[in-house]
Amino acid sequence: MERTIEMMEIEKNWDKFLSMPIETKISHFMREGRIYDCLFAQQFNREVLEYIFRIANTLRRITKTKEGMNFASSLLNHKRAMLYFIQPSTRTFLSFLNACHILGIKTSEIRDASISSEYKGESPEDTIRTFSSYVDLIIMRHPAQNFVEKSAWLMNRTKRPVPIINAGSSKDQHPTQALLDTYTLYRSFGGVIDGKTIAMVGDLKRGRTVRSLSFLMENYKNMKLVYIAPPEFKMERDVIDFLNKKNISYYETENFEEGIKEADAIYMTRIQDEHDKSGESKKIDYSKYSFTKKHLDIIKKDAIIMHPLPRREEISVEVDDDPRAMYWRQERNGMWARSALISYIFGVDAKIHIENKA
Amino acid sequence: MERTIEMMEIEKNWDKFLSMPIETKISHFMREGRIYDCLFAQQFNREVLEYIFRIANTLRRITKTKEGMNFASSLLNHKRAMLYFIQPSTRTFLSFLNACHILGIKTSEIRDASISSEYKGESPEDTIRTFSSYVDLIIMRHPAQNFVEKSAWLMNRTKRPVPIINAGSSKDQHPTQALLDTYTLYRSFGGVIDGKTIAMVGDLKRGRTVRSLSFLMENYKNMKLVYIAPPEFKMERDVIDFLNKKNISYYETENFEEGIKEADAIYMTRIQDEHDKSGESKKIDYSKYSFTKKHLDIIKKDAIIMHPLPRREEISVEVDDDPRAMYWRQERNGMWARSALISYIFGVDAKIHIENKA
Amino acid sequence: MERTIEMMEIEKNWDKFLSMPIETKISHFMREGRIYDCLFAQQFNREVLEYIFRIANTLRRITKTKEGMNFASSLLNHKRAMLYFIQPSTRTFLSFLNACHILGIKTSEIRDASISSEYKGESPEDTIRTFSSYVDLIIMRHPAQNFVEKSAWLMNRTKRPVPIINAGSSKDQHPTQALLDTYTLYRSFGGVIDGKTIAMVGDLKRGRTVRSLSFLMENYKNMKLVYIAPPEFKMERDVIDFLNKKNISYYETENFEEGIKEADAIYMTRIQDEHDKSGESKKIDYSKYSFTKKHLDIIKKDAIIMHPLPRREEISVEVDDDPRAMYWRQERNGMWARSALISYIFGVDAKIHIENKA
Repeated sequence: MERTIEMMEIEKNWDKFLSMPIETKISHFMREGRIYDCLFAQQFNREVLEYIFRIANTLRRITKTKEGMNFASSLLNHKRAMLYFIQPSTRTFLSFLNACHILGIKTSEIRDASISSEYKGESPEDTIRTFSSYVDLIIMRHPAQNFVEKSAWLMNRTKRPVPIINAGSSKDQHPTQALLDTYTLYRSFGGVIDGKTIAMVGDLKRGRTVRSLSFLMENYKNMKLVYIAPPEFKMERDVIDFLNKKNISYYETENFEEGIKEADAIYMTRIQDEHDKSGESKKIDYSKYSFTKKHLDIIKKDAIIMHPLPRREEISVEVDDDPRAMYWRQERNGMWARSALISYIFGVDAKIHIENKA
Repeated sequence: MERTIEMMEIEKNWDKFLSMPIETKISHFMREGRIYDCLFAQQFNREVLEYIFRIANTLRRITKTKEGMNFASSLLNHKRAMLYFIQPSTRTFLSFLNACHILGIKTSEIRDASISSEYKGESPEDTIRTFSSYVDLIIMRHPAQNFVEKSAWLMNRTKRPVPIINAGSSKDQHPTQALLDTYTLYRSFGGVIDGKTIAMVGDLKRGRTVRSLSFLMENYKNMKLVYIAPPEFKMERDVIDFLNKKNISYYETENFEEGIKEADAIYMTRIQDEHDKSGESKKIDYSKYSFTKKHLDIIKKDAIIMHPLPRREEISVEVDDDPRAMYWRQERNGMWARSALISYIFGVDAKIHIENKA
Repeated sequence: MERTIEMMEIEKNWDKFLSMPIETKISHFMREGRIYDCLFAQQFNREVLEYIFRIANTLRRITKTKEGMNFASSLLNHKRAMLYFIQPSTRTFLSFLNACHILGIKTSEIRDASISSEYKGESPEDTIRTFSSYVDLIIMRHPAQNFVEKSAWLMNRTKRPVPIINAGSSKDQHPTQALLDTYTLYRSFGGVIDGKTIAMVGDLKRGRTVRSLSFLMENYKNMKLVYIAPPEFKMERDVIDFLNKKNISYYETENFEEGIKEADAIYMTRIQDEHDKSGESKKIDYSKYSFTKKHLDIIKKDAIIMHPLPRREEISVEVDDDPRAMYWRQERNGMWARSALISYIFGVDAKIHIENKA
């Protein structure tokens, strides 16, 4: 999409820019025909997704040898990244940090706002601009709504912008989680996601991952979505409206066993009680939405079980040894998908002889 | 300056050593004719300053390519540094960390005294000696007066000393800030600082940066300093005495607009209320000492606006887009000046083909 | 030791496994005839110890040049390690971190459990498995009894295990401290530990280091141990029983000066008051067990003075300058011994031309 003069006017005003629909904003965060700032799951179309997945596959395979790992870490050994994670996160943080290390990127980290200059009264915008002075890439997780997007918008108005990757922005967007989830489907199904049935289970109302994954399903044909949740945690109206509009078939049920039976992928989620207003989660019997050993007998022989982790009781530890339990590999897929995304943003994919295999 | 036997006796006793004038102590912190421990702004004379600036220029230019960056990070890739920052600091910390990474130095960091062994009753001196066991360079910011200097003094009495760089020592010294400020003048004025008019604005009484910068001005000819401050925050007597002694011309005013009109550089500072004893800062109308959009019209066409950052209200965000706003570049200059300083301390400047251009 | 079918059954059950004697468990933590997980001091026999010491010597010597350091950091530059230190520790942490950097290993660190996902209710076992998703080695210090061992046991039951090194596990095991202590004896005595007299002084009851060192002495011939402690802190019965069983000669005394006179090594320790139940340490006169300047005159001319550090009053600072004061070198030996151990675990010792010199 080309940027019109009218749009360039709007872009100067943050509040106006923010209020634009995401689809319209996407071009603002691209350079030379590819993603520059990675902020929304909506930035990934099928072509980009599958290209990134093939980079991920290639990186994963070549780095099995010392020679291949040394090649990978020569790709971006002239770059420096900042990981700014002022919200608690082990998994996403480590996944990104090691993705950087795989590519040879040197890293700085701020994980505790209290040891930063913010106490001296600096604006968050100035803090981000400061980071950009020292590095070539900012990867950030931030609790304030839209702040990651605003940072990218701001950067793009300076003479020395650096790309920004959203590693989790309030409860709205976490695009690389959607990326790794889709990569897990792609890898597990030999590259063919079309026509599969995906069951999503649990706190669908507040689960950022199942919402993003639902939106991404428009990239694939003949998908069937099964939403399994207690009435209090049903999938939100906006997602249902989207599915209807895009003609993606789905059905909703409270019955866990019935819902998972026909699924090719079962995506379990934990209860998001950190978003509780007054302990409402405690009143719900979540045990009916837990995957235990006995369920291994009723799901399809080649189904996969996913979970964004961390888990609590939603999947019992005994399930871990089953070959269909894919959540540990899914976690590791995050590191590869993120390595691939960063390679793509910096355009070093041209140096990798990318494989065609899924 | 050669070290006399008498001086070598004094050096054995910390209290006696501490009480010596800085000029006398400088030789103690040199090796083979160059700075070994970087502790005081007074260690920089004009020749050293300009040599470091030329290294900084060269590093900045060669690292624009992957090839050049790979060369830079081969210079000290056999060294390890410790960043010991137990006072909050984002900017100086990241600047040093990335300066190390540019040169290939591997880094360890302690940013929170509470997770260190100090709780077990170790003396601060033993802590520093421990750090020195593992690394080749210690970069430290410490709240205790003279502790950075004492650490360097102590190190030099052991059989295995490592150089120490002062990254901010209580409210006294922050020599690399003075280095980067002067580098910004050097770069902005095409290498010719002599004869320029520098206005310094704000909390001059307690601002470490404007004090250090004033002292460094003795290295240049025909300088004019303009001190613009509310009466409560006037520049301290010791600096004024120094200027008189060195025949450096200056004048003091409370009138912001009058003061900045003729300046070639306007150095804005924030109110240092962390040094307040009883909230005295709140009683002062600091708004008269803020640079806003309207002031862009009254300053010289080729003046530069500086600020050590972080800022609060002293410079309005609208000023950022003006080409004379130099504070973001000044921040980035810090990384280059620090890279250059570290190269210089380790003597790898010989490997760099240093440019003569300013 | 070969693993029997019976043992393989036991290994599946953690509680049963835990209750086995360490000697029986050792083979579980080996691969291809060498240590894979380093958990217990008992894993080091004389042959392994001396082989690791020779690697350490070699690494220490070759890394004195830039060329040698670049060689060392090419050995494992395709590996990534996780340092998981949720107990305060500066020394061990920095020692391991820099040992990794010497070998080119890229590092991630978690030093504060509160910024990890644990708040979301993840089990400690899942946390460890998550770490293992991203890295090739986990180095951990953990306050929970047996948790490091359990982590290694758990890893070995997954399809993608990574080695685990114990960097201090509750008050039980700290095998690399024993390794570096023995390395210090080895280096200081020109490779010949047999026949030496080792005095251990202080809080022997609760000092992990002196307990481990005592156990390791069974690897050497004709050792004499002297335990010097106040009655309240005498060496525990289990160690005494072990010495009797192994025919290692020892004697116990409360008299510091008498005890250290004939020693070849004097191992000082601090009072472990963090293990106090009700301030019992304060009632003991520990000053009688402090090494001061005057004691330098009564010990052997070629004795060495050791201390695991941090120290308080047990060794006065004036002693530091004596050539027999070995504790600072001992600290640095830790980094070399740990580098050597990691090289050994990953089998890159084959690439190093290992010296025969002690």
